[in-house]
Amino acid sequence: MVNSFSIPTLDKDLPRLLQDEINGKTKPLGSLGQLEHLALQIGHIQGTLKPKIQKPSLLIFAADHGVVKAGVSPYPQSVTASMLKNFAAGGAAINVLARQLGWELKLINSGTVEALDLPGVIDLRIGSGTHNFLEKPAMSQAELEQAIRTGAELIHELAKQGCNTVAFGEMGIGNSSSAALLIHCLADVPMAKAVSRGAGCNELQFKRKQDVLEQACQLHGRITEAFEALRVFGGFELAMIVGAALAAAEHKMLILVDGLIVSSAILVALKAYPSLQTYLVFAHCSAAQGHKEMLEYIGARPLLNLDLQLGEGSGAALALPLVQSAVAILQDMASFASAEIAEKIES
Amino acid sequence: MVNSFSIPTLDKDLPRLLQDEINGKTKPLGSLGQLEHLALQIGHIQGTLKPKIQKPSLLIFAADHGVVKAGVSPYPQSVTASMLKNFAAGGAAINVLARQLGWELKLINSGTVEALDLPGVIDLRIGSGTHNFLEKPAMSQAELEQAIRTGAELIHELAKQGCNTVAFGEMGIGNSSSAALLIHCLADVPMAKAVSRGAGCNELQFKRKQDVLEQACQLHGRITEAFEALRVFGGFELAMIVGAALAAAEHKMLILVDGLIVSSAILVALKAYPSLQTYLVFAHCSAAQGHKEMLEYIGARPLLNLDLQLGEGSGAALALPLVQSAVAILQDMASFASAEIAEKIES
Repeated sequence: MVNSFSIPTLDKDLPRLLQDEINGKTKPLGSLGQLEHLALQIGHIQGTLKPKIQKPSLLIFAADHGVVKAGVSPYPQSVTASMLKNFAAGGAAINVLARQLGWELKLINSGTVEALDLPGVIDLRIGSGTHNFLEKPAMSQAELEQAIRTGAELIHELAKQGCNTVAFGEMGIGNSSSAALLIHCLADVPMAKAVSRGAGCNELQFKRKQDVLEQACQLHGRITEAFEALRVFGGFELAMIVGAALAAAEHKMLILVDGLIVSSAILVALKAYPSLQTYLVFAHCSAAQGHKEMLEYIGARPLLNLDLQLGEGSGAALALPLVQSAVAILQDMASFASAEIAEKIES
Repeated sequence: MVNSFSIPTLDKDLPRLLQDEINGKTKPLGSLGQLEHLALQIGHIQGTLKPKIQKPSLLIFAADHGVVKAGVSPYPQSVTASMLKNFAAGGAAINVLARQLGWELKLINSGTVEALDLPGVIDLRIGSGTHNFLEKPAMSQAELEQAIRTGAELIHELAKQGCNTVAFGEMGIGNSSSAALLIHCLADVPMAKAVSRGAGCNELQFKRKQDVLEQACQLHGRITEAFEALRVFGGFELAMIVGAALAAAEHKMLILVDGLIVSSAILVALKAYPSLQTYLVFAHCSAAQGHKEMLEYIGARPLLNLDLQLGEGSGAALALPLVQSAVAILQDMASFASAEIAEKIES
């Protein structure tokens, strides 16, 4: 088994105390809906009735995928590098959202085909893109372990700086193919429902993608061991997200999970370490096929449902204000006792 | 017909130009989903490709309801005043959310049973609560017109200060009964689906509420003229919201609509002035019965779906960051041209 993680178990009594605290606020019981569940979850993770969101950081991992050679995407591989340049220049959607919403952004080159010298991009390339999994596994065991370790180390560094909330984004032409296979293998979703059209596919290109992924399935079989599925069908950016998510849970960080691609990496981590779930907030449900099915398999209810289908961590970024609102409710709202309201509003 | 409003019609060519602008951003076409619709709507309202959100203001109107005497609520009427005190002291959910999210809050006493001298609350009481509509119409024609005019004047004042984005909140024990009847009368929702349980009702109390509202229907009939329905079944806070919303559209403001109660007032305004719809963003779908049905009747898709059921404008408050993100996308995101990305990501 690759890299080992030790995820802390949380105080079993705290949820009851947090629920009492929330119920004592000046509002009808349960009237803040999902925001109340969120407040309870964050308090539970941080081990306190007064949680805080500190230095929220969004890490974007970019990498190339060998399977693009087989024609799974209408875009040339070079778009991965172009978009990484766009991130570095500050002009992409995620740059705009991060600035507006208060995320610190970290850009990581996990393995583009060519080496890139971009200011503000941390170069941690595992290789020149993955292998084409129609020919052989996407990566070697050593590459897998290195990628997971690299993702984890980035989080250890953030933890030292006081960060307690993270999200992950990704960029990689072809990575919706990896996501489809991971979701098929690990979340029991039939291929017909696991393969999303992906950005900009027409009918013919989508058919081609479906055929290629069907072939990959037949070649390698339906791999149900999480890390092995990641090694065979995954990507360097996905493996880094797996390592980063598991390390984040080790540090008791709150993890805001983005859409289809990031969720497929989280699925790998969750299969290997089910106790990760306590630390996860699913930020949104993507318009991409396979995501809703995967969320249902996990039993997760996403916060937002805005037909987003961009990646880059954009959906996770957008959910931060809701997380901050949930925390503010616990921190700042009056209780019936403090407001001296005679008639408690209860059901 | 009461108070007259003149809602501007908007530039018919601008939506196409805005769509081109959005499509030129460095992302696959349509991949920001509902955020793109929102950006287009706001640009259209403001008449520009570079919209801005300025001085967002949330007005909370509080009033008492005569029908409470008939036992439609498990809470005593005094809770309206208690909660208004809580707003004035800054301890309620909406205070916390407004501070966190950057709303300027205005508190208006539209008509509590007793006069209240509260710092920070604008006293614009139309009367000592409405009449019990089981006996006679909730208000006179003169009261209705005064309330609508008062709501409008508050908005004229905000417009002078440069505000271009508003939301409304409400507090009034018994006002979910008014909302149910307005939705039944004006959105063609059967009573069985229009009456929500409301805050803290048990089964017996809910049955009582249903019976009372059925009686009111039989007494006054199903009134389909919007302002007359408002006069007979409404409340002073609801009438002020109607006036404020219509005045906001006159000033080309963006209006973020809260949950069940505020939506019932918006429904009145919309029935009288269908062109209001262009200016409305439905912020969330409430967990309260009748709201989803009303949104479907209008053909509105709400931004958030978090099982909120609090009122106070809390759902509208929570949607502000999404509105700001939509605007930021138009303002700050790179285009394919500016980013010099060779391969346009298009479908």
